[in-house]
Amino acid sequence: MSGPAEHKGYAESRRLFARASRVTPGGIYGHTSPVVAVPGDFPYYAARGEGGRYWDADGNEFIDFMCAYGPMVLGHHHPEVEAAAEKQRRAGDCFNHPTEAMVELAERLVALVEIADWAVFGKNGADMTTWAGQVAREFTGRKKILKVRQGYHGSHAWCSPGHGGIIAEDRAHIHSFAWNDLDEFRDLVRRHRGQVAALIASPYHHPTFGDSALPAPGFWAGVQETCRHEGIVLIGDDVRAGFRLHLGGSHRHFGFEPDLVCFSKALGNGHAISATLGRAELKVAASRVFLTGSFWHSAVAMRAALATLAVLERDDGIGQMRQTGEKLRAGLQARAQRHGLEVVCSGPPALPFMRFAGDTDWRRQRTFCADIARRGVFFHPHHNWFVCTAHTDADLATTFDAADAAFAAVKALG
Amino acid sequence: MSGPAEHKGYAESRRLFARASRVTPGGIYGHTSPVVAVPGDFPYYAARGEGGRYWDADGNEFIDFMCAYGPMVLGHHHPEVEAAAEKQRRAGDCFNHPTEAMVELAERLVALVEIADWAVFGKNGADMTTWAGQVAREFTGRKKILKVRQGYHGSHAWCSPGHGGIIAEDRAHIHSFAWNDLDEFRDLVRRHRGQVAALIASPYHHPTFGDSALPAPGFWAGVQETCRHEGIVLIGDDVRAGFRLHLGGSHRHFGFEPDLVCFSKALGNGHAISATLGRAELKVAASRVFLTGSFWHSAVAMRAALATLAVLERDDGIGQMRQTGEKLRAGLQARAQRHGLEVVCSGPPALPFMRFAGDTDWRRQRTFCADIARRGVFFHPHHNWFVCTAHTDADLATTFDAADAAFAAVKALG
Repeated sequence: MSGPAEHKGYAESRRLFARASRVTPGGIYGHTSPVVAVPGDFPYYAARGEGGRYWDADGNEFIDFMCAYGPMVLGHHHPEVEAAAEKQRRAGDCFNHPTEAMVELAERLVALVEIADWAVFGKNGADMTTWAGQVAREFTGRKKILKVRQGYHGSHAWCSPGHGGIIAEDRAHIHSFAWNDLDEFRDLVRRHRGQVAALIASPYHHPTFGDSALPAPGFWAGVQETCRHEGIVLIGDDVRAGFRLHLGGSHRHFGFEPDLVCFSKALGNGHAISATLGRAELKVAASRVFLTGSFWHSAVAMRAALATLAVLERDDGIGQMRQTGEKLRAGLQARAQRHGLEVVCSGPPALPFMRFAGDTDWRRQRTFCADIARRGVFFHPHHNWFVCTAHTDADLATTFDAADAAFAAVKALG
Repeated sequence: MSGPAEHKGYAESRRLFARASRVTPGGIYGHTSPVVAVPGDFPYYAARGEGGRYWDADGNEFIDFMCAYGPMVLGHHHPEVEAAAEKQRRAGDCFNHPTEAMVELAERLVALVEIADWAVFGKNGADMTTWAGQVAREFTGRKKILKVRQGYHGSHAWCSPGHGGIIAEDRAHIHSFAWNDLDEFRDLVRRHRGQVAALIASPYHHPTFGDSALPAPGFWAGVQETCRHEGIVLIGDDVRAGFRLHLGGSHRHFGFEPDLVCFSKALGNGHAISATLGRAELKVAASRVFLTGSFWHSAVAMRAALATLAVLERDDGIGQMRQTGEKLRAGLQARAQRHGLEVVCSGPPALPFMRFAGDTDWRRQRTFCADIARRGVFFHPHHNWFVCTAHTDADLATTFDAADAAFAAVKALG
């Protein structure tokens, strides 16, 4: 494991961004947009990856604590995942029919996730969260979907964090309540009694520009009890946290039982795939909600998913990531303290987040992330981070050295 | 090129389907569902592919006239596409940032498609058709979207061919008119004057369970003129036909100019990718409509797309597919005639379709497709077919021999 190399600057990232801006609205859009990270002083383009590290377009090397915003749960180029993908690729990927891989993956997930009797597949988280809501509407004959305020369930109109191009009808039956606020949730249910098809929520709350918030004691039990009592379908959106907290779904980690659960990101270790799993009683309704996409039955990503699950299970990947995340948190807190800086750590260890107390304009946070990036460690300033199984103790040691210097830079801000 | 091998039956396909039915609603859902093809007497699962041929789970070999419902425009395992994909794969695919491949692909498509000033990318056709509608709404400040009756633009709620899980609000501002009916279109525009954001249509009409219908003389000119006059954004849905009729977009083939155009299927020769391209004046509105997905910036499919476009251009793939399609049509018509059967051929040669005249219950069609499948040729009974550049004259000769026997089987129905 090498230490941080000489920082090469971001000139090539900026050159590519200038080219991109001519032919793409905003240059880079969506979750990887540099405009919402550290504009001007951060990598914009990636060139290659290996394990828990990646290199940007300028040749800068980073310990990768975003893991592509989640997917790379075993790190880039995991040999067993890529061997399984390559074997399937030699047979073929995209056909007139599904392949045996789809049957095997459905069987595997149904065995792994206790509540599940069946599974379907897409390519993206929102393919599944949107469809799950439709299944709930079909099953209940009701229209309303309750969600957590600032809960992210993808870029579709009913839940997009954006407003451009959205019309009132898109969200006419979407109602939000504050995370962990059981009273507000029950109040919404009361106000719309008999009209609520579903509650959709991630297993814990991970807003951008804010701390991650674990479920308060009794929150999930209360939600679940109300849903059962009122005939509301409980949809777990495990797209972001899935396969980092519990191999049987993050709801197991937090002790609740959804009726439908959506996965994506980590499922295929970077191969594009998503899944919804559901209870037996929802199977007929599910079969009545049209679901398809040109590449959604493709086999390579399914073989990659089977291999990813096998490696995570065999190597106790969940345990590894928890330990790495715990060490990361403790190490960052200790270094911050040395510099007399108060940091707020949140989220489960495998999906950690850290910010500076009282840093209301996010200036300290951006300074820290820009500085530590120059020293070879990539943290996002206001999106939760991701640990993968490829992160080593040596990576952590390098990270802590870099953090020491980056905390000094923050301290120097005054 | 070998002739048809001994038919092995479909026992393995049926076994897999039985397994799938236990863990998946409907067993196989969406466009590859056997329920809407030839139930019981058709391949259900694919095992491998090569060029213009594929093998099912029972080891039956087929000349592949569906090409995975479009994507395989150069055939399975095209060496140059796969080499480009593999080269990128060795660097990496899914990162915290886009890669140079995204910039290059946007530049390439903008150069290729005359109306386009910019491009964005997704993974699936509906990612793009839905987003294009939102861009039109953002640009115009209007709500209504006009579409062609039975026009397919993906499985999202606003346009899904299904009804399960759909609520009235999903389609409150979607209005349909009959393909080629300029009067009905203009009537809708008049009725909703000042409220219509967009018209979305495929460049020609390709319904399931029906003939493909090319644009009537004056149809596109009339649509375009009305759109320009009324400030309606014209969205070309080139997901299905794109890169089979004209490398610059199918609208060039038919002589009209959309404001936004959506591609997917053939763009990456089986690699999951989709794109929307647009005019300069829509760029700011486009930047305001949130768009993202976990794998939408992944590089491998973008490199595959660049290679696919390069091969199609260098080898005149469009011309090849037109010629193959013309020969296919002529050969099938000649064989049908020999048996005294009247067939109706429709669609452009590269996306051909053939059905039997007066076959209102589709019995002849299903018999033909089941019979010719047993002889090693795969045609879908009621979805348009696809030609690829890997289809050879030898494949056509084999197809015509098989068709001879399949027409005899249809004739025997009486």
